[in-house]
Amino acid sequence: MTAVDFAAFVENLADIASDTILPFFRTALGAEDKNVGGAFDPVTEADHAAESAMRRLIIETFPHHGIIGEEFGSVRSDADYVWVLDPIDGTKSFIAGMPTWGSLIGLLREGSPTYGMIVQPFTRERFVGDGVGALWRGPGANREVIERKLKTRACGDLSKATLLTTSPLLYAESKLPAFRRVEERVRLSRYGGDCYAFAMLAAGHVDCVIESGLKIYDIAPLIPIIEGAGGIVTNWDGGSATQGGDIVSSGSAELHDTVLKLLQG
Amino acid sequence: MTAVDFAAFVENLADIASDTILPFFRTALGAEDKNVGGAFDPVTEADHAAESAMRRLIIETFPHHGIIGEEFGSVRSDADYVWVLDPIDGTKSFIAGMPTWGSLIGLLREGSPTYGMIVQPFTRERFVGDGVGALWRGPGANREVIERKLKTRACGDLSKATLLTTSPLLYAESKLPAFRRVEERVRLSRYGGDCYAFAMLAAGHVDCVIESGLKIYDIAPLIPIIEGAGGIVTNWDGGSATQGGDIVSSGSAELHDTVLKLLQG
Repeated sequence: MTAVDFAAFVENLADIASDTILPFFRTALGAEDKNVGGAFDPVTEADHAAESAMRRLIIETFPHHGIIGEEFGSVRSDADYVWVLDPIDGTKSFIAGMPTWGSLIGLLREGSPTYGMIVQPFTRERFVGDGVGALWRGPGANREVIERKLKTRACGDLSKATLLTTSPLLYAESKLPAFRRVEERVRLSRYGGDCYAFAMLAAGHVDCVIESGLKIYDIAPLIPIIEGAGGIVTNWDGGSATQGGDIVSSGSAELHDTVLKLLQG
Repeated sequence: MTAVDFAAFVENLADIASDTILPFFRTALGAEDKNVGGAFDPVTEADHAAESAMRRLIIETFPHHGIIGEEFGSVRSDADYVWVLDPIDGTKSFIAGMPTWGSLIGLLREGSPTYGMIVQPFTRERFVGDGVGALWRGPGANREVIERKLKTRACGDLSKATLLTTSPLLYAESKLPAFRRVEERVRLSRYGGDCYAFAMLAAGHVDCVIESGLKIYDIAPLIPIIEGAGGIVTNWDGGSATQGGDIVSSGSAELHDTVLKLLQG
């Protein structure tokens, strides 16, 4: 069974995530604080409900697969196939009503990201990739569902680049200077985005996305989309992004080299 | 003729803006730089085309009305009724592919904002207000168009508040400390949003929006929506927000007082 065979199943998971989460979006539900005494990290009931529902379907359908989820941890994470789930990536955007969060569904094969999807239930967009190709599906001008190939753009010159990060407030103080070294040199730096920022990179609208302190479920599902669109994603050292950490993604190899050098000082 | 009579006409303007701008969204059009040698301020062809089309309809329908537009300046700005147009508020979000920009349509009567609309063509949302009430219209769970009353939420305690601003990078250095004094005290501070941030305040999802250096067309169309939803919007001195400048908006009077004091040091 190749990764492509999972495509229909991932659409089912996406439907479940959408149907579960959307009724909670822009309602006045309370958000608990996971890190008591620490940074504000809201978790909505939607997050829990969607991950539970997705896990249930995975376990029923593929009982030998592993699961790594943002909300309910890991089972069989050494299995040949491991699902990586983040039902609401961008919970802070979610609670602020902004439509720039997404449900992330990824599949690792022998530890490597092989298939990934970003689902935005409110805008009805799906970004999907398998490392070789990547697609966007969403609303066309007449509300019909249309599909486009995702393709990063080649911007070799950092002084012409658009940079996205979710928020400089999310960086540890020791990490911020590295980010600022890149930011000072780009044409446009914008904040806010979470997974949506990487989606816009895959779609060729922005040139570089930098994030710090990501977890595996924040980034592994995005890798097959970014790479399938022709982009590059690594950690700040140029190594594998799969496990998370400090992550940088670029639309072209030339730009990525420039940015890595700046990040490394 | 009361302001309410203009409601259907504003919907027509919104249709024109949507139909003109949407085909340009997420395409690889060049952006000119209005301030040569200055800050990056992209203007898309969509911006020009939409404002031209809206101005044409206003002049045909209400030849004695004035118009203040972001792209093509002012005519008859001392008329009893003056339209205030910003076809793409959030051009930087627009060029980054993010759906958090909007078309702003406002109507001043004897200099006071009397009717306003935020149109988001991609998400198919409209936020409309007349200073007394305010409504959201957008997609429901089954793609049908639904309508909800907009109502700010009362968060009296700044330490529990969510704050939005488009970007600290947009503040003059002398203005940033005032913003930081508020930011340090809120529960959650998020960046990115432009007009969409004010829309989320009107919808009761965030408690405070602070911006610096706004123009009349960035804020006048939003005032009837914010106030119609029960919110407050002034400049940092507590005076009228209509002409733009440094702007703060809150969901409740109590919170607004607290924030004004901090902004004023």
